[in-house]
Amino acid sequence: MTDAAGSSAVDDSFHVFDTTLRDGAQREGINLTVADKLAIAGHLDDFGVGFIEGGWPGANPRDTEFFARARTELELRHAQLVAFGSTRRAGLPAAEDPQVRALVASQAPVVTLVAKSHDRHVELALRTTLDENLAMVRDTVVHLREQGRRVFVDCEHFFDGYRANPGYAKQVVRTAHEAGADVVVLCDTNGGMLPAQIQAVVATVAADTGARLGIHAQDDSGCAVANTLAAVDAGATHVQCTANGYGERVGNANLFPVVAALQLKYGRRVLPDGALAEMTRTSHAIAEVVNLTPSTHQPYVGLSAFAHKAGLHASAIKVDPDLYQHIDPEQVGNTMRMLVSDMAGRASIELKGRELGIDLGGDRDLVARVVERVKERELTGYTYEAADASFELLLREEVEGKPREYFRIESWRAIAEHRPDGVHANEATVKLWAKGERTVATAEGNGPVNALDRALRLALERIYPELARLELADYKVRILEGAHGTSSTTRVLISTSDGRTVWSTVGVAENVIEASWQAVVDAYTYGLLRAGIDPQR
Amino acid sequence: MTDAAGSSAVDDSFHVFDTTLRDGAQREGINLTVADKLAIAGHLDDFGVGFIEGGWPGANPRDTEFFARARTELELRHAQLVAFGSTRRAGLPAAEDPQVRALVASQAPVVTLVAKSHDRHVELALRTTLDENLAMVRDTVVHLREQGRRVFVDCEHFFDGYRANPGYAKQVVRTAHEAGADVVVLCDTNGGMLPAQIQAVVATVAADTGARLGIHAQDDSGCAVANTLAAVDAGATHVQCTANGYGERVGNANLFPVVAALQLKYGRRVLPDGALAEMTRTSHAIAEVVNLTPSTHQPYVGLSAFAHKAGLHASAIKVDPDLYQHIDPEQVGNTMRMLVSDMAGRASIELKGRELGIDLGGDRDLVARVVERVKERELTGYTYEAADASFELLLREEVEGKPREYFRIESWRAIAEHRPDGVHANEATVKLWAKGERTVATAEGNGPVNALDRALRLALERIYPELARLELADYKVRILEGAHGTSSTTRVLISTSDGRTVWSTVGVAENVIEASWQAVVDAYTYGLLRAGIDPQR
Repeated sequence: MTDAAGSSAVDDSFHVFDTTLRDGAQREGINLTVADKLAIAGHLDDFGVGFIEGGWPGANPRDTEFFARARTELELRHAQLVAFGSTRRAGLPAAEDPQVRALVASQAPVVTLVAKSHDRHVELALRTTLDENLAMVRDTVVHLREQGRRVFVDCEHFFDGYRANPGYAKQVVRTAHEAGADVVVLCDTNGGMLPAQIQAVVATVAADTGARLGIHAQDDSGCAVANTLAAVDAGATHVQCTANGYGERVGNANLFPVVAALQLKYGRRVLPDGALAEMTRTSHAIAEVVNLTPSTHQPYVGLSAFAHKAGLHASAIKVDPDLYQHIDPEQVGNTMRMLVSDMAGRASIELKGRELGIDLGGDRDLVARVVERVKERELTGYTYEAADASFELLLREEVEGKPREYFRIESWRAIAEHRPDGVHANEATVKLWAKGERTVATAEGNGPVNALDRALRLALERIYPELARLELADYKVRILEGAHGTSSTTRVLISTSDGRTVWSTVGVAENVIEASWQAVVDAYTYGLLRAGIDPQR
Repeated sequence: MTDAAGSSAVDDSFHVFDTTLRDGAQREGINLTVADKLAIAGHLDDFGVGFIEGGWPGANPRDTEFFARARTELELRHAQLVAFGSTRRAGLPAAEDPQVRALVASQAPVVTLVAKSHDRHVELALRTTLDENLAMVRDTVVHLREQGRRVFVDCEHFFDGYRANPGYAKQVVRTAHEAGADVVVLCDTNGGMLPAQIQAVVATVAADTGARLGIHAQDDSGCAVANTLAAVDAGATHVQCTANGYGERVGNANLFPVVAALQLKYGRRVLPDGALAEMTRTSHAIAEVVNLTPSTHQPYVGLSAFAHKAGLHASAIKVDPDLYQHIDPEQVGNTMRMLVSDMAGRASIELKGRELGIDLGGDRDLVARVVERVKERELTGYTYEAADASFELLLREEVEGKPREYFRIESWRAIAEHRPDGVHANEATVKLWAKGERTVATAEGNGPVNALDRALRLALERIYPELARLELADYKVRILEGAHGTSSTTRVLISTSDGRTVWSTVGVAENVIEASWQAVVDAYTYGLLRAGIDPQR
């Protein structure tokens, strides 16, 4: 990972606190592995958030493992890792509560403690007294401070609690503050608040308690971004958000429009210099890791966020695009697109060609042909944005007048079987011609695609030993067009590494084996191209 | 269409103005036919909005046709139809401007006129003088009033214009108001404003001009709903929105969270009695017509909007659901759902059991066993929150002491091949025992998974004809643990329908064929369970 965000530090006076890995992971349909969590933490740190809440160590084995692996595998340059947990159990000393011990054991330098601040939740969910709840907050904060941790306290259901019993809600804030919590975070856990309410309550609580306040907003009313900003207007200096607004039910306050508003509209420096220009890339990269299609209509970072329908305003937009855009899209790493016009297409293909060292500038017909083929193929499900190697092969085919063919496939066959003795077996055979020779290879694998990949590699390595160092780095499958299973299309994206660089290829077909096969063939073809080998017969 | 919203009229003191058919249709990817527009207008009228902006007659033939057909084909019970158009051209009397004549010819009782209110837009886009622009507003409003139309004026780019030249922006509002416009709508056309700014400007303009004000907000800052409510806080009594927030770039203020907030949180009656309970259905119906998948995470109406996942919350949810929901989902026609996941504890499993009609309340050991199995399996990649049928099978297995076994698999085999003649072929064979009989079936398919599914179904249908009506409704593949392809795990989710309900099953294995096989076996097993069939040997 490169130092996208620059090395300029952000001071402690304002906290951008990300909880994608903890609260964001509660979104229906998200199920993160430890490797996913480490990858997302890397992206968030590159982007420059100040705090990354990694999960709840002790509450589930995956989060415990995440903190253990993070210690050796994550090298954070901007962010501090935060462990999330609860105040001690009623009637048990903090030091003896296994859940509190797990927080300490996680070795995270910062802990966010969730505390009840709504009287009815104390009685119904915790089943304890209001006084004991205050003691639980106090004791746990004091204990963790004694263990050398920085402590933030999340007051769960704060705004509903404030409505029911403002005196008690404020007492929880005061208790946390006086016990040594650096920030007390007011949570709209049910997401029902509107900005005017948030602003009034935050202002009053700040004045009455003297605590440093943060805000955690859920989006159930469709106002989480505005609620977060309203809290900042009222004096909050710590915002809890998730990438792309992932979170339980409707989701959390979306990190990206919040930091963009703070930097570009409030003129407040909350991220390292240069970070904002990486925002679109960061948003899409995290969507890839959680395996959700990036929302095309997300503010600032969506593919459509700066897409203008040509026509009515075309002439004026040419004179002054700022009249039709609230910000310059390049500030957030996005681009303006004009729809109903292939001008953008041509320009980006020329640009892409230049990037690959292929000059297309002079040949308008060639560019038009490439634009046409890309459009046609993307209509059937291909995507070249995420498959640069397949795109380069397509481009070279148009430039050179014929495809790069290092080998010619005669036939292949893959067999997956579950035998009567209970054994699963996968086997594939590939027959091909290369450098005038016919080769037949058979291999087994842990699945039919893996068996096919091995058989192809076995056949090719006899002729091109250069392929030995290639490794499959990633494999993704997406089913396009969900309705009525049988007519759907399968897209496979494969990343391949030669130890120095990684390239991506794409295959699209009715079924996953064929789609994978196409992507694998492109991957090896590109590997031979990169190795500088001339195509033979 | 039924009279979902009741027949109670809403008075004119507050306008819910829908512009899905005009501004919403500008969303990238939406392309409405006249029949689509008529269907959407029907849904919006049933829902009870006060005004439906149908399009720009004269500007494109489809919108002209829409107004012509609406006169005979639409029977509106709540809404008035609105034609959208522009102030007269510079230097031409309103009565002679063909575009203004088309507005009159549309016979819509209400006209929304778009007017420039930003000085630079007048000069650069209209290429006329500031004074002539005022005359254009005045003349066009007066002319349409003389033709018996009610007139609303949309002040385009109002907030940016107000920032650049507040005096001129207000002059446009005053001119429209004095010429006879009923409402002057302040538009955040570029969507860059934040609620505090909107509120301050609307309050000032209301005080300075005396005009009745409306608000039209775009969502580029992610604050369109909050901006709309901020304008209402400042005195606006007319809100322009689109269903599901469809619109250009990021979109418009979403109709549904705006009206829900006004009714449920402001206690303001803006829709006919009973309308809100139809909101979820209306949102999904309109999404179907425009052919976009309904957003699962949309506030109030999304499938996930009241889905609870965390084990933390589930115990208290049993006691009092209102503690964990900002509104009762039934108020907007949605329902609460409990998700099962590795974060879930006992309480949510008990609750889920109750949802499925299986009482687990008494048996703590049983619940603990289920929790353990769910955690264990989710660690290896299973996910039960999206696979309720697989979860129910797991639950029943623990309750009944053995798995539901309607059939026993002896062996299966799938072959995918690319033959030397270029033909792709996929074939599968399944051997199984059911009701004491051994059956062997072979089938072809468009892929190896499809062939396996067909072979299994062929074998089973001979014994269980009930399976004939089952249909594969959706198929999803996810590769877990992206790094180093070979060790990755594949998860398959399958949705199956029997024509009345849909259920989801999950399979996890090293390869996609095996994972699919597991999910398919669960799908048919659950289908037989649902059909009320007793398991046999």
